[in-house]
Amino acid sequence: MVLNGTLIRKAILAELAEKVQSHLQAGKRPPHLAAVLIGEDPASQTYVAHKVRDCQQVGYQSTLIHKEAAISQAELLGIIAELNQDARIDGFIVQLPLPAHLSEVAVIEAIAPEKDVDGFHPVNIGRMSKGLQALLPATPAGIVELLQRYGIETQGKHCVVVGRSNIVGTPMALLMSRNRNPGNCTVTLCHSHTQNLGHYTRQADILIAAAGQPEFISADMVKEGAVVIDVGIHRKADASHPNGFRLVGDVQYDQVAPKAKAITPVPGGVGPMTRAMLLLNTYHVYHATHG
Amino acid sequence: MVLNGTLIRKAILAELAEKVQSHLQAGKRPPHLAAVLIGEDPASQTYVAHKVRDCQQVGYQSTLIHKEAAISQAELLGIIAELNQDARIDGFIVQLPLPAHLSEVAVIEAIAPEKDVDGFHPVNIGRMSKGLQALLPATPAGIVELLQRYGIETQGKHCVVVGRSNIVGTPMALLMSRNRNPGNCTVTLCHSHTQNLGHYTRQADILIAAAGQPEFISADMVKEGAVVIDVGIHRKADASHPNGFRLVGDVQYDQVAPKAKAITPVPGGVGPMTRAMLLLNTYHVYHATHG
Repeated sequence: MVLNGTLIRKAILAELAEKVQSHLQAGKRPPHLAAVLIGEDPASQTYVAHKVRDCQQVGYQSTLIHKEAAISQAELLGIIAELNQDARIDGFIVQLPLPAHLSEVAVIEAIAPEKDVDGFHPVNIGRMSKGLQALLPATPAGIVELLQRYGIETQGKHCVVVGRSNIVGTPMALLMSRNRNPGNCTVTLCHSHTQNLGHYTRQADILIAAAGQPEFISADMVKEGAVVIDVGIHRKADASHPNGFRLVGDVQYDQVAPKAKAITPVPGGVGPMTRAMLLLNTYHVYHATHG
Repeated sequence: MVLNGTLIRKAILAELAEKVQSHLQAGKRPPHLAAVLIGEDPASQTYVAHKVRDCQQVGYQSTLIHKEAAISQAELLGIIAELNQDARIDGFIVQLPLPAHLSEVAVIEAIAPEKDVDGFHPVNIGRMSKGLQALLPATPAGIVELLQRYGIETQGKHCVVVGRSNIVGTPMALLMSRNRNPGNCTVTLCHSHTQNLGHYTRQADILIAAAGQPEFISADMVKEGAVVIDVGIHRKADASHPNGFRLVGDVQYDQVAPKAKAITPVPGGVGPMTRAMLLLNTYHVYHATHG
């Protein structure tokens, strides 16, 4: 079974659009997401443009605050303080990475946790770790949503997460081990210092590949009947494609798919879910005050 | 090898006492820990009395704020706000559990993270999760300290944690998986929903038993040559002992010890380290401002 993130994303966006409509009909303002973009990094510009377009698709208001790369830390913190105070804005993100002279840690910790729709603030990570209500980071939350919507059983399963990044692997391992549904997995967190990685991945009922290495999960590393979630997205040179490349994940899809009970494709698996989660988090914040 | 927490604790306290003396000789005030105790729970009273005594042993100033069980949430939050502001106090704890009418979540989140020497505030858990500097919860920090002082190699080892509590199992799993030393373990987190627990525990190079079940780790669940850390402490009826009971851990010590490369006894293993970490955290806060 292919876990179709594009399809689920569409369903989520349609649900959100319907909710927004009913709020508007009740005379309320729409949810409002702001994005802060610093500098001219093309990838960041594209990501933010997608987020703005996503907002339009579901009827959210969006505000893009674009500042030059030379902005001072104090000025950026001032913008964040304003966004924290602004009751017309439900949630906001600061697009990462930031130029080197700005402290990502300080910037993230300056965001009011209740408006931190990226779920990167330590308070949100800490609350999630404690099983309390929190704004969840988008990629792990999107994966959980995908598992849930496809009715994949997680309780008591062995979930092996490969990669311990702050925004994917570590929160993913935490989420899957919490006393919730989806959740209640026995979770193994693997990373660059793991020895004999295949020993662990072959035990996985649910394998989450988030190491950022192109096609490094081979078929012999996967148990027959496993659920395989591929977080990676990489360009691979391919002369047969019009652009000269195609997109691949962390998993050798063609070899692994026949063994897997379920698998996410790249593209069209985790990626679309991640973007949908930003909208869902924004709605959660909106709903808490305008519900 | 027996990992002697009592011995290491003494060494840590002696080091701290020496540091405090040199600060005093330099004309500085000593570190200052405050403890808030609510109600008359005998166990809580004993724990807080021990913490006060520990402070005296290393030359810290200590303040005990004891309030009746009927205290209102607002009044308790007022006390916390004062402690947050009071520059004469480096760190403070609110002894848990609290009477049922008080919200532990709200109380913990009201503590200024930089004075949260119990390491329970979500900001500290979140920062630890992100590999940033944080005040670490005492039991996991004490176990890491014990491993380090006994020179136990952790990098690339498989650490299996049994129990996912907020104050031990979950932060322990996080800490052991971070890119630090001790750390860099492949970590498996097991809990009440884990199926076939022995399958995981038998893989452990480092086994951390923190499930709160008396003597439930049997010898057949442990790999030959494993390092076994026992977080449990339970009273077991035993007519041959003067009190009519003896203390046991989560591990069947007599059966497991012969297989283990290293093991913590109960009592005298993890417990003394936990108390020492409160002093160490308090010193860290003090040192950051009075260093």
